[in-house]
Amino acid sequence: MKALILFGHGARDSRWREPFERLALIWRARHPQVRVELAFLELMQPSLAEAVTSLVGSGARNIVVVPVFFGQGGHLRNDFPVLLSACQEKFPDVVLSATPAVGEDEAVLQAIVDFGARAL
Amino acid sequence: MKALILFGHGARDSRWREPFERLALIWRARHPQVRVELAFLELMQPSLAEAVTSLVGSGARNIVVVPVFFGQGGHLRNDFPVLLSACQEKFPDVVLSATPAVGEDEAVLQAIVDFGARAL
Repeated sequence: MKALILFGHGARDSRWREPFERLALIWRARHPQVRVELAFLELMQPSLAEAVTSLVGSGARNIVVVPVFFGQGGHLRNDFPVLLSACQEKFPDVVLSATPAVGEDEAVLQAIVDFGARAL
Repeated sequence: MKALILFGHGARDSRWREPFERLALIWRARHPQVRVELAFLELMQPSLAEAVTSLVGSGARNIVVVPVFFGQGGHLRNDFPVLLSACQEKFPDVVLSATPAVGEDEAVLQAIVDFGARAL
Protein backbone atom coordinates (compact mmCIF):
# COMPACT_ATOMS: atom_id res chain seq x y z
CA MET A 1 0.00 0.00 0.00
CA LYS A 2 1.28 3.44 -0.96
CA ALA A 3 0.93 6.47 1.28
CA LEU A 4 1.90 10.13 1.30
CA ILE A 5 3.24 12.39 4.02
CA LEU A 6 2.95 16.17 3.67
CA PHE A 7 5.86 17.43 5.74
CA GLY A 8 5.83 21.05 6.92
CA HIS A 9 7.91 23.20 9.23
CA GLY A 10 5.42 23.74 12.04
CA ALA A 11 4.73 26.94 14.01
CA ARG A 12 3.61 28.09 17.45
CA ASP A 13 0.31 29.49 16.13
CA SER A 14 -2.14 26.64 15.56
CA ARG A 15 -3.79 28.56 12.72
CA TRP A 16 -0.54 28.19 10.75
CA ARG A 17 -1.59 24.59 10.26
CA GLU A 18 -4.79 25.37 8.35
CA PRO A 19 -3.40 25.19 4.79
CA PHE A 20 -1.83 21.85 5.65
CA GLU A 21 -5.17 20.49 6.82
CA ARG A 22 -6.70 21.74 3.57
CA LEU A 23 -3.97 20.04 1.56
CA ALA A 24 -4.84 16.76 3.28
CA LEU A 25 -8.56 17.29 2.58
CA ILE A 26 -7.89 18.00 -1.10
CA TRP A 27 -5.67 14.93 -1.28
CA ARG A 28 -8.32 12.68 0.31
CA ALA A 29 -10.99 13.98 -2.07
CA ARG A 30 -8.83 13.42 -5.15
CA HIS A 31 -6.85 10.33 -4.20
CA PRO A 32 -8.94 8.43 -1.65
CA GLN A 33 -7.04 5.21 -2.38
CA VAL A 34 -3.74 6.70 -1.11
CA ARG A 35 -3.64 7.46 2.59
CA VAL A 36 -2.18 10.82 3.55
CA GLU A 37 -0.76 12.11 6.83
CA LEU A 38 0.67 15.45 7.87
CA ALA A 39 4.00 15.67 9.71
CA PHE A 40 6.00 18.58 11.10
CA LEU A 41 9.66 19.34 11.71
CA GLU A 42 9.05 21.22 14.95
CA LEU A 43 6.45 22.93 17.16
CA MET A 44 3.57 20.79 15.85
CA GLN A 45 2.58 17.14 15.97
CA PRO A 46 2.87 14.54 14.61
CA SER A 47 6.60 14.29 13.92
CA LEU A 48 7.83 12.59 10.77
CA ALA A 49 8.62 9.45 12.79
CA GLU A 50 5.12 9.42 14.30
CA ALA A 51 3.47 9.81 10.89
CA VAL A 52 5.60 7.05 9.35
CA THR A 53 4.88 4.75 12.30
CA SER A 54 1.15 5.41 11.97
CA LEU A 55 1.12 4.70 8.24
CA VAL A 56 3.21 1.53 8.56
CA GLY A 57 0.87 0.38 11.31
CA SER A 58 -2.06 0.72 8.94
CA GLY A 59 -0.32 -1.29 6.23
CA ALA A 60 1.67 1.21 4.16
CA ARG A 61 4.79 -0.31 2.61
CA ASN A 62 5.71 2.52 0.23
CA ILE A 63 5.69 6.04 1.66
CA VAL A 64 6.52 9.21 -0.26
CA VAL A 65 7.31 12.32 1.80
CA VAL A 66 6.55 15.68 0.17
CA PRO A 67 8.35 18.59 1.87
CA VAL A 68 5.84 21.45 1.88
CA PHE A 69 8.56 24.08 2.02
CA PHE A 70 9.39 26.80 -0.48
CA GLY A 71 13.16 26.79 -0.27
CA GLN A 72 15.67 24.04 0.31
CA GLY A 73 17.55 25.61 3.19
CA GLY A 74 19.22 24.04 6.19
CA HIS A 75 16.04 22.34 7.40
CA LEU A 76 15.64 20.33 4.23
CA ARG A 77 19.32 19.87 3.40
CA ASN A 78 20.48 18.93 6.92
CA ASP A 79 17.66 18.11 9.37
CA PHE A 80 15.26 16.32 7.05
CA PRO A 81 17.65 13.64 5.66
CA VAL A 82 18.61 12.68 9.23
CA LEU A 83 14.96 12.28 10.24
CA LEU A 84 14.18 10.31 7.08
CA SER A 85 17.18 7.99 7.60
CA ALA A 86 16.09 7.30 11.18
CA CYS A 87 12.63 6.33 9.93
CA GLN A 88 14.15 4.07 7.29
CA GLU A 89 16.30 2.35 9.93
CA LYS A 90 13.25 1.79 12.10
CA PHE A 91 11.32 0.25 9.20
CA PRO A 92 13.88 -1.36 6.87
CA ASP A 93 11.21 -3.22 4.88
CA VAL A 94 9.31 -0.07 3.97
CA VAL A 95 10.18 1.87 0.81
CA LEU A 96 10.59 5.43 2.05
CA SER A 97 11.38 8.24 -0.38
CA ALA A 98 11.14 12.01 -0.61
CA THR A 99 10.41 14.50 -3.35
CA PRO A 100 12.13 17.88 -3.67
CA ALA A 101 10.47 20.78 -1.85
CA VAL A 102 7.19 21.88 -3.43
CA GLY A 103 8.81 25.27 -4.10
CA GLU A 104 11.01 23.52 -6.68
CA ASP A 105 7.95 22.68 -8.77
CA GLU A 106 7.30 24.95 -11.72
CA ALA A 107 3.52 24.47 -11.57
CA VAL A 108 3.44 25.48 -7.89
CA LEU A 109 5.46 28.61 -8.69
CA GLN A 110 3.18 29.41 -11.63
CA ALA A 111 0.15 29.11 -9.35
CA ILE A 112 1.77 31.60 -6.93
CA VAL A 113 2.46 34.04 -9.77
CA ASP A 114 -1.12 33.69 -10.98
CA PHE A 115 -2.37 34.40 -7.45
CA GLY A 116 -0.31 37.60 -7.38
CA ALA A 117 -1.57 38.63 -10.81
CA ARG A 118 -5.19 38.26 -9.72
CA ALA A 119 -4.53 40.66 -6.84
CA LEU A 120 -3.42 43.52 -9.09
CA MET B 1 2.48 52.63 -11.71
CA LYS B 2 1.62 49.32 -10.06
CA ALA B 3 4.22 47.01 -8.56
CA LEU B 4 4.37 43.71 -6.70
CA ILE B 5 6.44 42.54 -3.75
CA LEU B 6 6.91 38.83 -3.11
CA PHE B 7 7.47 38.69 0.65
CA GLY B 8 9.12 35.59 2.13
CA HIS B 9 10.44 34.54 5.52
CA GLY B 10 14.16 34.39 4.72
CA ALA B 11 16.71 31.81 5.87
CA ARG B 12 20.40 31.48 6.70
CA ASP B 13 21.11 29.25 3.71
CA SER B 14 21.31 31.38 0.56
CA ARG B 15 19.99 28.48 -1.55
CA TRP B 16 16.68 28.82 0.28
CA ARG B 17 16.16 31.93 -1.82
CA GLU B 18 16.22 30.12 -5.18
CA PRO B 19 12.45 29.54 -5.57
CA PHE B 20 11.88 33.21 -4.79
CA GLU B 21 14.28 34.26 -7.51
CA ARG B 22 12.45 31.92 -9.88
CA LEU B 23 9.11 33.44 -8.87
CA ALA B 24 10.46 36.87 -9.79
CA LEU B 25 11.76 35.55 -13.14
CA ILE B 26 8.39 33.97 -13.97
CA TRP B 27 6.65 37.19 -12.97
CA ARG B 28 8.93 39.32 -15.20
CA ALA B 29 8.39 36.98 -18.16
CA ARG B 30 4.63 37.02 -17.78
CA HIS B 31 3.95 40.53 -16.51
CA PRO B 32 6.84 42.70 -17.74
CA GLN B 33 4.75 45.85 -17.34
CA VAL B 34 4.47 45.36 -13.54
CA ARG B 35 7.73 45.67 -11.65
CA VAL B 36 8.40 43.00 -9.03
CA GLU B 37 10.75 42.93 -6.05
CA LEU B 38 11.50 40.29 -3.45
CA ALA B 39 11.51 41.16 0.27
CA PHE B 40 12.20 39.13 3.39
CA LEU B 41 11.08 39.18 7.01
CA GLU B 42 14.47 38.19 8.41
CA LEU B 43 17.90 36.75 7.60
CA MET B 44 17.82 37.94 3.96
CA GLN B 45 17.80 41.26 2.15
CA PRO B 46 16.06 43.40 1.11
CA SER B 47 13.64 44.06 3.94
CA LEU B 48 10.05 45.00 3.18
CA ALA B 49 10.88 48.67 3.85
CA GLU B 50 13.86 48.52 1.48
CA ALA B 51 11.81 46.93 -1.31
CA VAL B 52 8.99 49.48 -0.90
CA THR B 53 11.49 52.36 -0.89
CA SER B 54 13.12 51.03 -4.05
CA LEU B 55 9.81 50.64 -5.89
CA VAL B 56 8.55 54.07 -4.82
CA GLY B 57 11.86 55.52 -5.98
CA SER B 58 11.30 54.04 -9.41
CA GLY B 59 7.81 55.52 -9.65
CA ALA B 60 5.47 52.92 -8.14
CA ARG B 61 2.37 54.44 -6.56
CA ASN B 62 0.34 51.26 -6.01
CA ILE B 63 2.17 48.33 -4.42
CA VAL B 64 0.66 44.93 -3.66
CA VAL B 65 2.54 42.68 -1.22
CA VAL B 66 2.08 38.92 -1.65
CA PRO B 67 3.16 36.94 1.44
CA VAL B 68 4.84 33.83 0.08
CA PHE B 69 4.08 31.82 3.20
CA PHE B 70 1.99 28.69 3.58
CA GLY B 71 0.36 29.40 6.92
CA GLN B 72 -0.83 32.57 8.55
CA GLY B 73 0.99 32.20 11.86
CA GLY B 74 2.51 34.80 14.14
CA HIS B 75 4.80 36.20 11.46
CA LEU B 76 1.92 37.16 9.20
CA ARG B 77 -0.63 37.99 11.88
CA ASN B 78 1.66 40.04 14.12
CA ASP B 79 4.99 41.02 12.53
CA PHE B 80 3.87 41.69 8.97
CA PRO B 81 1.07 44.23 9.67
CA VAL B 82 3.50 46.29 11.78
CA LEU B 83 6.08 46.33 8.96
CA LEU B 84 3.43 47.20 6.40
CA SER B 85 2.03 50.03 8.53
CA ALA B 86 5.52 51.49 8.97
CA CYS B 87 5.96 51.50 5.17
CA GLN B 88 2.58 53.14 4.73
CA GLU B 89 3.50 55.88 7.23
CA LYS B 90 6.75 56.50 5.40
CA PHE B 91 4.95 56.83 2.05
CA PRO B 92 1.44 58.15 2.81
CA ASP B 93 0.72 58.90 -0.86
CA VAL B 94 1.39 55.34 -2.01
CA VAL B 95 -1.43 52.78 -2.10
CA LEU B 96 0.03 49.82 -0.23
CA SER B 97 -1.98 46.62 0.17
CA ALA B 98 -1.43 42.95 0.92
CA THR B 99 -3.02 39.70 -0.19
CA PRO B 100 -3.57 36.71 2.08
CA ALA B 101 -0.72 34.19 2.25
CA VAL B 102 -0.30 32.16 -0.94
CA GLY B 103 -1.09 29.03 1.11
CA GLU B 104 -4.66 30.35 1.40
CA ASP B 105 -5.11 30.06 -2.37
CA GLU B 106 -6.95 26.98 -3.58
CA ALA B 107 -5.06 26.85 -6.89
CA VAL B 108 -1.70 26.90 -5.08
CA LEU B 109 -2.85 24.05 -2.82
CA GLN B 110 -4.13 22.09 -5.83
CA ALA B 111 -0.75 22.50 -7.52
CA ILE B 112 0.96 21.10 -4.41
CA VAL B 113 -1.41 18.12 -4.35
CA ASP B 114 -0.77 17.51 -8.06
CA PHE B 115 2.99 17.61 -7.41
CA GLY B 116 2.58 14.95 -4.73
CA ALA B 117 0.42 12.81 -7.00
CA ARG B 118 3.05 12.86 -9.75
CA ALA B 119 5.60 11.50 -7.25
CA LEU B 120 3.60 8.35 -6.47
